Amino acid sequence: MDLDLIRQLAVPNDTKILLAVVDGLGGLPHPETGRSELQAANTRHLDRLAAESACGLTIPVAHGVTPGSGPGHLALFGYDPLRYTVGRGVLEGLGIDFDLQPQDVAARGNFCTLDDQGRITDRRAGRIDTEQSAALCQVLREIELPGVRLFVEPVREHRFLLVLRPQEAGELSDQLADTDPQREGVPPLAPRALAPEAEATAELVRRFVASARERLDGCQPANGLTLRGFARHPQLPCFPEVFRLRAVAVAVYPMYRGLAKLVGMTVLPTGSTYDDEVETLRQHWDELDFFFIHYKAADSAGEDGDFEAKVAALEAFDQAVPKLRELAPDVLMIAGDHSTPSVLAGHSWHPVPFLLHSKLVRRDEVDAFSESACLRGSLGIFPATEALPLAMAHAQRFSKYGA
Amino acid sequence: MDLDLIRQLAVPNDTKILLAVVDGLGGLPHPETGRSELQAANTRHLDRLAAESACGLTIPVAHGVTPGSGPGHLALFGYDPLRYTVGRGVLEGLGIDFDLQPQDVAARGNFCTLDDQGRITDRRAGRIDTEQSAALCQVLREIELPGVRLFVEPVREHRFLLVLRPQEAGELSDQLADTDPQREGVPPLAPRALAPEAEATAELVRRFVASARERLDGCQPANGLTLRGFARHPQLPCFPEVFRLRAVAVAVYPMYRGLAKLVGMTVLPTGSTYDDEVETLRQHWDELDFFFIHYKAADSAGEDGDFEAKVAALEAFDQAVPKLRELAPDVLMIAGDHSTPSVLAGHSWHPVPFLLHSKLVRRDEVDAFSESACLRGSLGIFPATEALPLAMAHAQRFSKYGA
Repeated sequence: MDLDLIRQLAVPNDTKILLAVVDGLGGLPHPETGRSELQAANTRHLDRLAAESACGLTIPVAHGVTPGSGPGHLALFGYDPLRYTVGRGVLEGLGIDFDLQPQDVAARGNFCTLDDQGRITDRRAGRIDTEQSAALCQVLREIELPGVRLFVEPVREHRFLLVLRPQEAGELSDQLADTDPQREGVPPLAPRALAPEAEATAELVRRFVASARERLDGCQPANGLTLRGFARHPQLPCFPEVFRLRAVAVAVYPMYRGLAKLVGMTVLPTGSTYDDEVETLRQHWDELDFFFIHYKAADSAGEDGDFEAKVAALEAFDQAVPKLRELAPDVLMIAGDHSTPSVLAGHSWHPVPFLLHSKLVRRDEVDAFSESACLRGSLGIFPATEALPLAMAHAQRFSKYGA
Repeated sequence: MDLDLIRQLAVPNDTKILLAVVDGLGGLPHPETGRSELQAANTRHLDRLAAESACGLTIPVAHGVTPGSGPGHLALFGYDPLRYTVGRGVLEGLGIDFDLQPQDVAARGNFCTLDDQGRITDRRAGRIDTEQSAALCQVLREIELPGVRLFVEPVREHRFLLVLRPQEAGELSDQLADTDPQREGVPPLAPRALAPEAEATAELVRRFVASARERLDGCQPANGLTLRGFARHPQLPCFPEVFRLRAVAVAVYPMYRGLAKLVGMTVLPTGSTYDDEVETLRQHWDELDFFFIHYKAADSAGEDGDFEAKVAALEAFDQAVPKLRELAPDVLMIAGDHSTPSVLAGHSWHPVPFLLHSKLVRRDEVDAFSESACLRGSLGIFPATEALPLAMAHAQRFSKYGA
């Protein structure tokens, strides 16, 4: 649903909405048993909740499209992920909790190995460890560029974050082409402006690259670098304003806290476990309207291709479901940002099980929470962007459309 | 899905996709038995395939919209049929294998009967036979118009194709109103430009009509003509480029070969039976990525209102299913361009049974291939335009969207 329509329909109420995201929730059958992770897991709390809820499956972006974490979450927040995009440089910054400012230009960097002709022989510099990477970032941070402040932050292994921050009234552009040629045997591409107004920024990046090249000379295997995904902080419509919800996010991982912050949610400090997250929710329950809580372990196990670990992660989540229900939200959603089938060891395009619990739902015959059970749900297979409008309706926070 | 997004996501792979279209696949229950053609047919190969596949139903154009063959196929090729249109004149040309050039303007013609006041008394000239029609076309072909070459080709019964081809650097417009008033008791409408730049072309058509009128005078019952669907060759995005697939079409009927050619598929010469078509596939299997194969008999029987003949046609198709499976495509889709229920003796708007077979599907409980069985499928009821994006995903030919 268009955010303008949501803005038009949203009305205040004193109801509370809880969106519990299980990252990488959906799966595929194990080739030997024919049962998916959710089917294999003992999730009796989820199953009971499903029996009392309206169930369905969400399509994160579009049929056949495998989303990254950014689009997957934006959709669950009600933002069309094809319309509202977050650049890779910005996501990289969110992922390490870098405090990106509106005027900053961020890019994802890779250390790489160059031969004596300047050609890339390893795009990941042998995946040097994060400590080595941090030492190199320290070296690059000393480069001076006129009119901008430079940040070079280690991310993980060969990855780093480059941020240019204009000083005083300066303005930078993110309309720059990647310097990563995406293959080996050729040199990194020269920094290049994609629009006339980006020429000055391109020149700054050229200076940075040239100076970095000198400073990294001899630092085998990481004697070169590539940059991609130049991006500025996206100006997304403000979630609390659009939905008229005092909204908070509770997440352990920086990327998800960052995404919530991008749409204007308040990010609550929390501990390092899901129990900590739930406790944080509880502490702030009375004063707010909308709560996004993020559970990461299912995705991590799926990404590792570890079927049993994903089953265990889902069972651990299941154990927390009673605590979520104890909060007695008027609307409780259990959703996933995308599927992460263990058999694919990565994200996938498959629709994601979903349930919405509220006293106003039209219940269905679904009495288990799984990919196949949710197919029989009363919500059908629907775009993930519609989850929050459905929640708003069940929370009686939407006015009637038309007379 | 927007073709620009497909273009952005598509990556090369060595997987193969087979789209088997059963023209007019969907049906309606026989009033006496309550069973549709697919339910009445013995389709054990399709049923077994369905049990191993993800099933669903496609909506060809939009809820309630009955598509012609053009929109029905364009949707299955991934093109939004409401955005990408093929004029009737062009479809008529494709149907008789006319080699339409980019600068041509084509129109569908009908011979009709006029009274001595010039009013239409029979819009189809008593459905004169195709031979009579061919003789009249021969007469009209002799008309000379300045700066254009004229083609007048018989189609079937009272129908013909008119093509104006500009000579040298000339350019024609297809912004012309139909001359067919769609009713009897009034004269044909005068050719009329719908845009200023079409005035010159309208004048040429006026001359053609006036000269035709003289030459047909006395040729009862076909002493007049009407023209409609003026159209130029549509410039559609190139399928092989958008999807990064080396794509071929195998079809007996010219219309379907023509549609495939319009989107840039290579059309393979083949014999006159479905067995010939399958054999053609087999011969070219190794060298290509995407294969569209067309089965016509189900639609023909449905159009004739012959329930039993449609049942037989579906059973004959079923016999060929093992040969399709022997090719071992990574993704096999069985789809229809629209429904052609025998009880309607024509195309209809009803969603069309669909299955997608691949090792990456989420299987469902569907173990028969029919309108009602597919309702329980894991793909749900979805736009036909999404079939090919789904195939691309299952063939692992789509990159991730966003980070």
